[in-house]
Amino acid sequence: MSSPASRPSTDWQQAHLWPIRVYYEDTDAGGVVFYANYLKFMERARTEWLRTLKINQQHLSLTQGVMFVVSQLDMQYKLPARLDDALSVETVVTQVGRASMTFAQRVMRHTATLALGDIRVGCVDICSFKPTALPADVRTQVSLLTKR
Amino acid sequence: MSSPASRPSTDWQQAHLWPIRVYYEDTDAGGVVFYANYLKFMERARTEWLRTLKINQQHLSLTQGVMFVVSQLDMQYKLPARLDDALSVETVVTQVGRASMTFAQRVMRHTATLALGDIRVGCVDICSFKPTALPADVRTQVSLLTKR
Amino acid sequence: MSSPASRPSTDWQQAHLWPIRVYYEDTDAGGVVFYANYLKFMERARTEWLRTLKINQQHLSLTQGVMFVVSQLDMQYKLPARLDDALSVETVVTQVGRASMTFAQRVMRHTATLALGDIRVGCVDICSFKPTALPADVRTQVSLLTKR
Amino acid sequence: MSSPASRPSTDWQQAHLWPIRVYYEDTDAGGVVFYANYLKFMERARTEWLRTLKINQQHLSLTQGVMFVVSQLDMQYKLPARLDDALSVETVVTQVGRASMTFAQRVMRHTATLALGDIRVGCVDICSFKPTALPADVRTQVSLLTKR
Repeated sequence: MSSPASRPSTDWQQAHLWPIRVYYEDTDAGGVVFYANYLKFMERARTEWLRTLKINQQHLSLTQGVMFVVSQLDMQYKLPARLDDALSVETVVTQVGRASMTFAQRVMRHTATLALGDIRVGCVDICSFKPTALPADVRTQVSLLTKR
Repeated sequence: MSSPASRPSTDWQQAHLWPIRVYYEDTDAGGVVFYANYLKFMERARTEWLRTLKINQQHLSLTQGVMFVVSQLDMQYKLPARLDDALSVETVVTQVGRASMTFAQRVMRHTATLALGDIRVGCVDICSFKPTALPADVRTQVSLLTKR
Repeated sequence: MSSPASRPSTDWQQAHLWPIRVYYEDTDAGGVVFYANYLKFMERARTEWLRTLKINQQHLSLTQGVMFVVSQLDMQYKLPARLDDALSVETVVTQVGRASMTFAQRVMRHTATLALGDIRVGCVDICSFKPTALPADVRTQVSLLTKR
Repeated sequence: MSSPASRPSTDWQQAHLWPIRVYYEDTDAGGVVFYANYLKFMERARTEWLRTLKINQQHLSLTQGVMFVVSQLDMQYKLPARLDDALSVETVVTQVGRASMTFAQRVMRHTATLALGDIRVGCVDICSFKPTALPADVRTQVSLLTKR
């Protein structure tokens, strides 16, 4: 259970940032954000990162018959987030394959890292859920980013 | 803001019962079940009630091209539910229309009513979301129930 | 099952606006936003409306020992919201009582009303959950708004 | 990103089983269970496993001032679950430390493994969230299990 996201080599300087506010819906009776809900925050951030590349998932699904699904994730939870907290999710693409992308993501409160993870996302056919090559334009745009 | 579910006339003796256990995922930082999550409990109970009539929603959608959607709801919240509570959802059909069904539902902890509501569910085409007549077999089965 | 929010008299011109983006987490297998999740959107909007009045719920709970809980709601669902939709929640206070506030809220996509509701929120003691008078400063600020 | 849960050495024969039914609330617009919701299913199963040991989390929190929080997780998603699926979560304790427990868990549909993961759960003080030794009786009971 080691998480590459905690590698010193991840270049967070290049990260995409997405703000998240914590509402009642996100918390649990422990008084803090429920552990599964960090995955929602991270999914929102990946979606917004895709949107900056002009990639709309609804559109991809309708026009190319493909969608992205998470195939693997490693998470480390460091500190709890609480109601009304203003958080930020940092997203970096660490690898682009034929039919998958890997992200390192961190949930931050100011300079404190609350949670961090590595998430592998596969591109699949919307009907069969079989792995499918990334659409060419997605691949091109994402690859440009990872080479910067 | 008056709720027919609180009418003395609702015959809860005939209600379908569905047990619900409260987990961390259901609660919020107030230490109690988050208000929107009672709607999940009630939807589970309606689904299980349909299953007792041999009505499977996945099947309806694939074979008849229709699905059920909530079109209206009135809820009253009386007492909070807490982590680890063993609850029961009571479900009664109160009306069957051409393209809709209305339910009265109560979330109970032993004899205490925690929440109660009236929920109108419409039958719609899965593509257009336009109201569509209830499938004949669904209508027949549900009508038998409401006449008992 | 009639909803005051649909009264012609609600003055939506004065409404507080809060933008909501629809993510995968909000949708269900019907391809649209799950009905309970509109209540999350509306709770976020009420929270942000309170924040514009400098009312922070975490702070209220810690300093005054009170919290807000929904005691009653009437919802009407008109049109489905879908993945990637950019929505707006409109919030108007329609009544302020000794220990409660009532809101009319609408979830809009451009000029289309997708869902609308009336929500009564009670102020309760965080331990006993018994109704408690609204803190004086909250009452003052909210009353000013409703008199405008 | 390697997951010990996929090690051939995990003894699933000894696993605790917990049934899960998939409802609309669990699915997303991809037509399948949303990836974060598997963590809810696994948390329910761990809670029920604790309950078989007569360990009630609400009680632990009130009497001993401790709670369990997830500190690390590795997940692999193999096959999608769909609406109405009847699933089973298998839970095995793989390690017991002074202030933590590690679980291997699998979400199954009949004999097919849909998702599997390793989850490390820490015991923390409910106020400070600092790691705290497992209560003696919890440790005793869980250790007996892992030695079988």
